[in-house]
Amino acid sequence: MTTSETLFTKLTTGYDQSLSRGGIDGRRIAERLSELSMIGASAEGGVTRPGYSCEEKQAKQVVKSWMEQSGLKVTEDGAGNVIGRLEGTGIRKTIVSGSHVDSVPNGGNFDGPLGVISALEVVEAWKETGYLPRKSYEVVIFSDEEGTRFGAGLTGSHAMVGQLTEDATSLKVDKDGKSFETVIEEYGSSLPAVWRAKREMNDIELFVELHIEQGKILEKSDVSVGAVKGIAGPVWMNVTFQGEAGHAGNTPMDDRRDSMVAASHFIHMVSTLPRQFSETAVATIGKLNVFPNGVNVIPQKVELTVDIRDIHEDKRDCLVEAIIEAAEQSGVAHHVDVTCQKTLAVQPLLVDEELLSNMKESISEFGMEPMELMSGAGHDAMVMGREVPAAMLFVKSKKGISHNPEEWTDLSDCVIGVHVMKDFIEKQMERS
Amino acid sequence: MTTSETLFTKLTTGYDQSLSRGGIDGRRIAERLSELSMIGASAEGGVTRPGYSCEEKQAKQVVKSWMEQSGLKVTEDGAGNVIGRLEGTGIRKTIVSGSHVDSVPNGGNFDGPLGVISALEVVEAWKETGYLPRKSYEVVIFSDEEGTRFGAGLTGSHAMVGQLTEDATSLKVDKDGKSFETVIEEYGSSLPAVWRAKREMNDIELFVELHIEQGKILEKSDVSVGAVKGIAGPVWMNVTFQGEAGHAGNTPMDDRRDSMVAASHFIHMVSTLPRQFSETAVATIGKLNVFPNGVNVIPQKVELTVDIRDIHEDKRDCLVEAIIEAAEQSGVAHHVDVTCQKTLAVQPLLVDEELLSNMKESISEFGMEPMELMSGAGHDAMVMGREVPAAMLFVKSKKGISHNPEEWTDLSDCVIGVHVMKDFIEKQMERS
Repeated sequence: MTTSETLFTKLTTGYDQSLSRGGIDGRRIAERLSELSMIGASAEGGVTRPGYSCEEKQAKQVVKSWMEQSGLKVTEDGAGNVIGRLEGTGIRKTIVSGSHVDSVPNGGNFDGPLGVISALEVVEAWKETGYLPRKSYEVVIFSDEEGTRFGAGLTGSHAMVGQLTEDATSLKVDKDGKSFETVIEEYGSSLPAVWRAKREMNDIELFVELHIEQGKILEKSDVSVGAVKGIAGPVWMNVTFQGEAGHAGNTPMDDRRDSMVAASHFIHMVSTLPRQFSETAVATIGKLNVFPNGVNVIPQKVELTVDIRDIHEDKRDCLVEAIIEAAEQSGVAHHVDVTCQKTLAVQPLLVDEELLSNMKESISEFGMEPMELMSGAGHDAMVMGREVPAAMLFVKSKKGISHNPEEWTDLSDCVIGVHVMKDFIEKQMERS
Repeated sequence: MTTSETLFTKLTTGYDQSLSRGGIDGRRIAERLSELSMIGASAEGGVTRPGYSCEEKQAKQVVKSWMEQSGLKVTEDGAGNVIGRLEGTGIRKTIVSGSHVDSVPNGGNFDGPLGVISALEVVEAWKETGYLPRKSYEVVIFSDEEGTRFGAGLTGSHAMVGQLTEDATSLKVDKDGKSFETVIEEYGSSLPAVWRAKREMNDIELFVELHIEQGKILEKSDVSVGAVKGIAGPVWMNVTFQGEAGHAGNTPMDDRRDSMVAASHFIHMVSTLPRQFSETAVATIGKLNVFPNGVNVIPQKVELTVDIRDIHEDKRDCLVEAIIEAAEQSGVAHHVDVTCQKTLAVQPLLVDEELLSNMKESISEFGMEPMELMSGAGHDAMVMGREVPAAMLFVKSKKGISHNPEEWTDLSDCVIGVHVMKDFIEKQMERS
């Protein structure tokens, strides 16, 4: 049995066949997820399809053929974004839906592909039922969402909205010393073509992305899908506590400048700060290194990272200020020098209230409680949302596991997601 | 200019010549420190003389020749401890003094050698002044005090007091996979000979060791020497906080089992505990590793070490219990599993009050304020002190730096140390 057969079998086992209706076919979704899972397949059942790799290209190629079969007109921009377009019958407006097919190393089979396949399944359903959309509809595959290779990610969507600057792209080098320029040329494009991928956005009325939750909230509430109310843009900071090394035995407690104690005080304070600013804010110290890291040496230096997120940019920025203040307080209290350096600040996306309400309405119509969720991770919808109205629909993730071969969403939940998104898009097609 | 000439020049520059009196010769001490500094010399001006290495052996060889020149009868036991003996004129009792000549990799030139050279300088002074001790006197070089190779240390002194068990030694393997047995055979001895190094202690009346402070207390008080009131035996513990990994963006603050936050809470508590139990107690978290240690991943596991010391064993053990309790409290508070494992527990040495008082008297007689110090680091005197009365004298360390080429003690302070120790030993010679 091949990996693909395994995934197909696993997906269809326990699938509620009655969900395949209205032109939406759970079996086809399972087949397509399975077929993509074979490209860059890892021994553990995951996939490795870095952005702008052969594997990502091959995955795009497969989806392109499906797009063509379903009657879409397929084009590819200079950033490698694949667009399959269905012309509307009436109004000169376009609704766009999609996601990505690249992955982190040994990543999962749902993060990205499910959004692309679901967007395409809406077209398949329309084809089967003879539905002709008034507005144009596009299925898009964004390039290099994960950013494994050059450490940035969301490359395709940034190129599309014109936020991939000449400076940023021409300076990028991967860990093997290969420049972004070389990689993009090997891929069959060029740097100037990437910069030219900026698209005229005036005709785009809406972007909508279906994605796995990568969290546990839907699972805990036993709900298949949820409406995303916002995507939290992260601020990343490097914080360094610089004290003084000393012998663990020969330095009295009151004569220490212990960077570890100062860092601990700080981390403990940070854990209580987010809820003082916003219900949706989070702050995480994920990475911490101690120097010299010896059992009997008072730590001279602690370097750590803070990841701070919220869907409300103003509240997030207040939280960032409070965290910097906490670092400084802790430094003063423990006679340790502190430096804070922001290394990343991504603008969050707050989903338009009307779009959120429409999404919840589509969920309700399916007979489910319409939950609101925040997305802690960045998505192409966050980038698209800077230029056009954007919405997101999350489907349940098993145990919240993602970026891992264990990543899983039941086929029934996938199909429910497609039904809800199709309803949401169709209602939008009817709006003037 | 060779490294040795540099050290000699550095030592004698600014030396107070008037201190060379009563048979004690600062120039000779400087020459000897310089000569030893050439054996295993590192590019940075330090030395690398691991226990049972050729370099340690060569250093012992050089000291042996000095011992013989000064009229001592030199022997070596099965553990490689070198003993230079001067027979007493009257009473069948022995006073022993010495230290070690091995070093950590790229270690300093004073930690160990100064104690050996000082013990020998007492003999040189007696020879020059015609002083004949009533009791016998021995200068000893203990093997492998630092324990760099097999991670234990104090090997020679443990062998001498009979605490180097068959089990412990036969199981030891260095990082290159070489067994202690092979190393000791290459050195020219054997495992059984090491075990037989246990010495009859009944005739030893006193062991006294002069050593650099490796702390900053004497420097801060601007005093050359201090009497050691106790040597703090360390307890080492590994503490593991096992939580749950999760995406830094997708996991709400109140749904986390963050091992880093739990560990921080613990570390912060630990920093305040020692002073609740004892003025001399210390506790240090020197080593800490985070897993998986990614910017946007909630830490699943934090592993850290705690080094806990006091000269009072009962108070130290109460502190250990309080630290274990703090770890458990922090685990409960943050829903994280905690395990504590003791990996080392060394019996501290509390110096006998009379000996401490005698040492302070010798310091006072030199016209200095007699300071009492605790030793946070272990020394051969700690091990010898389990079997015979033991005393220690500390000399000032520049900035407290040790185990480093920067390790420094002014020659004037070294010589003052020899004067004080000589006075202390001579007074002990007269006691019945």
